Amino acid sequence: MSSSEAAQFGIENIPYGIASSNTRSSPQAVTRIGDEVIFLADLADKGAFGSDSASLSATFRENTLNTFAGLSKRIHTTVRSAIQLTYKNKKHVAASEHIKDVKLHIPVHIGDFTDFSASKDHLLNAGEAMMGIRALPPSFLNYPIVYAGRSSSIRVSGSPVARPLGQYWDNPAAADKRIIFGPCRTLDYELEVGAVIGRPVKAGAVLKARDADEHIFGLVLVNDWSARDIQGLEMYPLGPFNGKNFGTTISPWIVTLEALSKHKVPAPPRDVPVADFMDDPEGANYDLNLSVDVVRNGTSHRTCSVGFNTMYWTFRHMLAHHTIGGCDLRTGDILASGTVSGEGETEHGCLLELVMGGKKPWKLNDGGELRYLEDGDEVRFTGIVGGADSGIGFGGCSGVIHPAPKI
Amino acid sequence: MSSSEAAQFGIENIPYGIASSNTRSSPQAVTRIGDEVIFLADLADKGAFGSDSASLSATFRENTLNTFAGLSKRIHTTVRSAIQLTYKNKKHVAASEHIKDVKLHIPVHIGDFTDFSASKDHLLNAGEAMMGIRALPPSFLNYPIVYAGRSSSIRVSGSPVARPLGQYWDNPAAADKRIIFGPCRTLDYELEVGAVIGRPVKAGAVLKARDADEHIFGLVLVNDWSARDIQGLEMYPLGPFNGKNFGTTISPWIVTLEALSKHKVPAPPRDVPVADFMDDPEGANYDLNLSVDVVRNGTSHRTCSVGFNTMYWTFRHMLAHHTIGGCDLRTGDILASGTVSGEGETEHGCLLELVMGGKKPWKLNDGGELRYLEDGDEVRFTGIVGGADSGIGFGGCSGVIHPAPKI
Repeated sequence: MSSSEAAQFGIENIPYGIASSNTRSSPQAVTRIGDEVIFLADLADKGAFGSDSASLSATFRENTLNTFAGLSKRIHTTVRSAIQLTYKNKKHVAASEHIKDVKLHIPVHIGDFTDFSASKDHLLNAGEAMMGIRALPPSFLNYPIVYAGRSSSIRVSGSPVARPLGQYWDNPAAADKRIIFGPCRTLDYELEVGAVIGRPVKAGAVLKARDADEHIFGLVLVNDWSARDIQGLEMYPLGPFNGKNFGTTISPWIVTLEALSKHKVPAPPRDVPVADFMDDPEGANYDLNLSVDVVRNGTSHRTCSVGFNTMYWTFRHMLAHHTIGGCDLRTGDILASGTVSGEGETEHGCLLELVMGGKKPWKLNDGGELRYLEDGDEVRFTGIVGGADSGIGFGGCSGVIHPAPKI
Repeated sequence: MSSSEAAQFGIENIPYGIASSNTRSSPQAVTRIGDEVIFLADLADKGAFGSDSASLSATFRENTLNTFAGLSKRIHTTVRSAIQLTYKNKKHVAASEHIKDVKLHIPVHIGDFTDFSASKDHLLNAGEAMMGIRALPPSFLNYPIVYAGRSSSIRVSGSPVARPLGQYWDNPAAADKRIIFGPCRTLDYELEVGAVIGRPVKAGAVLKARDADEHIFGLVLVNDWSARDIQGLEMYPLGPFNGKNFGTTISPWIVTLEALSKHKVPAPPRDVPVADFMDDPEGANYDLNLSVDVVRNGTSHRTCSVGFNTMYWTFRHMLAHHTIGGCDLRTGDILASGTVSGEGETEHGCLLELVMGGKKPWKLNDGGELRYLEDGDEVRFTGIVGGADSGIGFGGCSGVIHPAPKI
């Protein structure tokens, strides 16, 4: 709630969230400008959205953004412009509360959560750390690899994360390794960005990557908390499950594609030709600067700074790959990018990479060592779009590690 | 809708579903006895459920069974007994319609769908067919392996299944294999049973396998349609995704644990000791006889007959493993068993096993050969509990293959 965070919410942002307060006790749709949270149903009741005001008032009083997110891009543009105009004319004041006076809730009902792995560097680094193999999966240059995640355990930023219990190898490298049960010993974060689906994709639609932006309402920050020991044992052959499903954290603010449109950057060139439905000459990525801080014993340590422009596959590719077989996407579904990592030493989007599976602990400023997350650690993500003066950011995505339940 | 199907719906069954008809146009809760579908809100309106009748009338008019499924086992027992009594006294007639006059809908809203792989024989056989490896995954004797599935594309029995498009190897065995894009060439079914969650499991609850029945409302048949070529390329390292998410079919009827309680059988003995929370001395499985028929060009071919008692892991184990890390389960979530297969030649729950990945086509009665599913094929599952006179079954779970969308 610092003033530096307020700078991420300039008039060019206009993100959407769900909030409640003492005076507005029902969670409902809001936006944020500076440190002011504006309750959108109140704006609608004053006619701020012209002839759409009456229907939008009801929509904005819902406790998720799903109905609004599913509306046409035309309505989204109208609403965005009207909010900006209302603010410029200082007609938003009666609809506003200070950020410190509101409680932010999960912004959408998420029917299905999908987690991709779209960064080439993450795959190379994580593969080396987990399996000793520095190679891309066989399909990676044709499509982003991916697994279905768990929607029930997605929480909004600020929610605690309990260390999971589970089964894992006591010593994965040992010849006589045994499977034991207990609290996770190698708890990690994964720095990700998620796309929130707006207009649904119908079952059997053959969506091309270059047309996919029509279905993206906006982006959120995502922390795909990972229990590396539990994950390491369970991965073969069906992929991650209990190593991931104990909790996922998302930012309370959804930054729209409209706000991001001036910050498009090209995706990296394709290494090999791709199928026509995946071909996207524009290759739209975003100039989004991400960072991770681990707060331990009151001291904050920056463990990662990386650009989202490093991602080999874009959200457009992810939507096209997800739906080509006939799978539908519903409004509110989230497709996450997978860990964002670059080539550099400061660009590791998870501890698995940074500490090489625990083999290379990372030196903290205060003389300590960081391997994996300890109880009481807080992990904070930030995402700033463009330069420091863009006025567009996500305002953070954080969580504190709580001890595992007693057995 | 045959009379043989009616025999699965004796008075000892009392399964639950969601139906509509010309006279009752809103989908709502029903049960079935013989060929009579009984609309439960109508029974409630006549006071059939005593002091619970008023609240149950509203619950039964909802278009999913979720609220009802989340009620206590005490209420479920009361409702079951009251339905049986009403039927015996012939007071159900005004609330009933013939099965041919109703349309059955998906019975629950499914928040998350989880697909286990709990059969030892399936893993051995499928591993051999797909990867040439006849060995269990390293964790299989400690817990059932599992992946998160897709909830949005689950449909009720009778819904068509479009052949998925996707990317796969043109010839997986060739040294110079290439990745190509097109309609799936190796479309398969998987014979499974699913547990529908009743009372939720809270995040962080440490649920023991032996206590897990409290959270299971009942069982459904599940066809986990699988595109083997698409799955084969994408599996490593994150597991199945597009090879599965194009569609899953469930039976319209949920058979309750109460109906199944007289048909409990022991699970196979454990090969190695398991963690305490997974330990379940009673090892409850069910005497459930499953079969698969593939209908091609009007002729039905029985490809599989197998008992659910062959499963190494039970639903109790699946619930305990699913939640031990802190993941919650919501009412309506479905946990599927994975393909049910036994040791015998007639006990292969999917074509991948039956035709050994396509290498050993299966001879049809009419002289033809079956490898994988063709457009127009219908796949029908049946599930009969206990002996033929038990009066308890699922009434089938079927789907017809439609051609892939034009590109």
